[in-house]
Amino acid sequence: MKVTVCRKEHFNAAHRLHNPEWDDATNQKVFGKCNNPNYHGHNYDLVVHLTGSVDARTGYVIDMKVMKDIIREEVTDRYDHKNLNLDVADFKNLNPTAENIAGVIWNRLRAAFEDHLDLKITLYETERNYVEYSGN
Amino acid sequence: MKVTVCRKEHFNAAHRLHNPEWDDATNQKVFGKCNNPNYHGHNYDLVVHLTGSVDARTGYVIDMKVMKDIIREEVTDRYDHKNLNLDVADFKNLNPTAENIAGVIWNRLRAAFEDHLDLKITLYETERNYVEYSGN
Amino acid sequence: MKVTVCRKEHFNAAHRLHNPEWDDATNQKVFGKCNNPNYHGHNYDLVVHLTGSVDARTGYVIDMKVMKDIIREEVTDRYDHKNLNLDVADFKNLNPTAENIAGVIWNRLRAAFEDHLDLKITLYETERNYVEYSGN
Amino acid sequence: MKVTVCRKEHFNAAHRLHNPEWDDATNQKVFGKCNNPNYHGHNYDLVVHLTGSVDARTGYVIDMKVMKDIIREEVTDRYDHKNLNLDVADFKNLNPTAENIAGVIWNRLRAAFEDHLDLKITLYETERNYVEYSGN
Amino acid sequence: MKVTVCRKEHFNAAHRLHNPEWDDATNQKVFGKCNNPNYHGHNYDLVVHLTGSVDARTGYVIDMKVMKDIIREEVTDRYDHKNLNLDVADFKNLNPTAENIAGVIWNRLRAAFEDHLDLKITLYETERNYVEYSGN
Amino acid sequence: MKVTVCRKEHFNAAHRLHNPEWDDATNQKVFGKCNNPNYHGHNYDLVVHLTGSVDARTGYVIDMKVMKDIIREEVTDRYDHKNLNLDVADFKNLNPTAENIAGVIWNRLRAAFEDHLDLKITLYETERNYVEYSGN
Repeated sequence: MKVTVCRKEHFNAAHRLHNPEWDDATNQKVFGKCNNPNYHGHNYDLVVHLTGSVDARTGYVIDMKVMKDIIREEVTDRYDHKNLNLDVADFKNLNPTAENIAGVIWNRLRAAFEDHLDLKITLYETERNYVEYSGN
Repeated sequence: MKVTVCRKEHFNAAHRLHNPEWDDATNQKVFGKCNNPNYHGHNYDLVVHLTGSVDARTGYVIDMKVMKDIIREEVTDRYDHKNLNLDVADFKNLNPTAENIAGVIWNRLRAAFEDHLDLKITLYETERNYVEYSGN
Repeated sequence: MKVTVCRKEHFNAAHRLHNPEWDDATNQKVFGKCNNPNYHGHNYDLVVHLTGSVDARTGYVIDMKVMKDIIREEVTDRYDHKNLNLDVADFKNLNPTAENIAGVIWNRLRAAFEDHLDLKITLYETERNYVEYSGN
Repeated sequence: MKVTVCRKEHFNAAHRLHNPEWDDATNQKVFGKCNNPNYHGHNYDLVVHLTGSVDARTGYVIDMKVMKDIIREEVTDRYDHKNLNLDVADFKNLNPTAENIAGVIWNRLRAAFEDHLDLKITLYETERNYVEYSGN
Repeated sequence: MKVTVCRKEHFNAAHRLHNPEWDDATNQKVFGKCNNPNYHGHNYDLVVHLTGSVDARTGYVIDMKVMKDIIREEVTDRYDHKNLNLDVADFKNLNPTAENIAGVIWNRLRAAFEDHLDLKITLYETERNYVEYSGN
Repeated sequence: MKVTVCRKEHFNAAHRLHNPEWDDATNQKVFGKCNNPNYHGHNYDLVVHLTGSVDARTGYVIDMKVMKDIIREEVTDRYDHKNLNLDVADFKNLNPTAENIAGVIWNRLRAAFEDHLDLKITLYETERNYVEYSGN
């Protein structure tokens, strides 16, 4: 019996969209107000989805407390109340779009959770804009 | 790297469920209070899900602003504050159930978005009733 | 000890904003797309707030089940899946703006709940537009 | 044309996580505060997802009212305002983790809905913790 | 300049409504399924509202972190994953209706927050049922 | 008949809490991670509440479209995708705590809406932290 277990966490961060290989006019044209050199910010909501077999002894796919602690250690404690472009090494050379943030988070969590668990994440930049990534 | 990008839009519309091939008693029996000849209405929430490769230069699957503009042009500007049965050609000969509205919206959006992007939609008729369609 | 007890109910209805004393051009100018002669609709959420003393024997201001039944009998069963302009006598001669719907609902509920309970209502036309009325 | 129809219902219940084959210290270590011998509780939200062909006459995959009635008869009327461990036969010999509750609910609903409809369920224990199961 | 600062916290608990001065039939008649002798439960959401002057040096009415810590120490750490009737001294002789829980929480918080801050609380038993209390 | 009309808008912004009269150690001690010199950010939700008489001809306290346009012109167009500390003159000499942002927004809106309308605002910094201000 394979069940997907989902846990929602959040972090509040500043970011700016910018491609250093382009001049300012191109950046402004492509990224619009998201290119503001002084940054803007979001309350990000992150949902982690792990799929695996249910352990007959515990009735768990994974202890939700363990899951929560790993998400906080790998992601939210590193990103919360940070400027993603300036404070987080993951984005020193990577534009922090929702798509790229999701890719980085997925890689972090893939390394942290056991291999037999399938992993998907959903990252909400706002209530109306969000992305999903499952490593493919 | 393939990511799914999701955008939520909404529209407020009146509708009525009715099959013109049936008599009134049958329509009333099948569709109940949704068959009210004077219509009722909903705040519809539409989530559009597009899956594609992340462009290495922008970090985008698609510019969310482009995505939003297409959804508004193809769907919400056409349906918002309308009577789906009377005002919208799409439903002149099609019963506007959530399933059928989702089918029509999917076809509109499939024609508008580039072919390399996979498309799924979720349409909420109420917070408790919703449908999903991916063209299959 | 005075506590406020709140209960949320909902109804789905069609409506149209229109002042019969004005010509069509004026109505269109004032009410815009809400003036559509074929109606549009909403999922209305209604929150009823009753303030009163806590009964020492029950620990209740009012039995929430009684409160729910009265709201349904007086309001939601009458308005749900209806066209407010055409099907509901309350709006035969009253423009069904959120403000006016709230006034009518408040009067209905004021007559139905016991006098020693203070009454306020909140009516959501959408998640972003709502009104409050307390009889003043 | 295959569409997925989703319906959300809810129930409020008490439960306790416990494996009778383990001693108290092990149960406390594994299940932590969820092992409280006097129980705790949740507002569970259940979303049922049914995928099937749209009937050309009705425009429905399934009548949402039929779907709602089956969910209430099979699940929420049985579990609502109950102690899952003590009052519900389904959990007399099964630890009521979210994963196991989802498995039991899926089996109940699988037997109740017609075979040509694919079935998935989502069970929210809290807004932040939830599970999904589709019978695999 | 007086501002109201609001903080939401939550706890998951079991409870049962029961008046020991009444016989079982009366309790069952008054409290219905909430009288289940084996308990049921809820995800309670608690919003604390504090009104006071803004400190010109900090720009705070109160440090939200201090506010959160006091709410957790006084309320949610005591009630979370507990059976309110059996595990919490506050309800040994008090029926844990939403109204009474709100009264007890207000008293706890009134003693913990400084006197110059006005205090109101909102307690959600479910998304649809909630109460407000401000000490009057 | 006096009704309160409420409209929700949002903006995404970066900010940092800092008192320039204090040294870095004091700022860090008082504001903690909110003092990050590189900023963090939020999705702010703003609810504007206007109380006034219902116009008998329109059934409106105020045209919600006018209300929305004023909020956008006065507040959200100025603050959205901005760094409040660096880009917004309102906070050049004012620490952008939720309390202070609410005070500035209230003053802006008080000047923009007609005097006979009572004004209150609610500003959500996160789903769990928010403030209310009504000019007193």
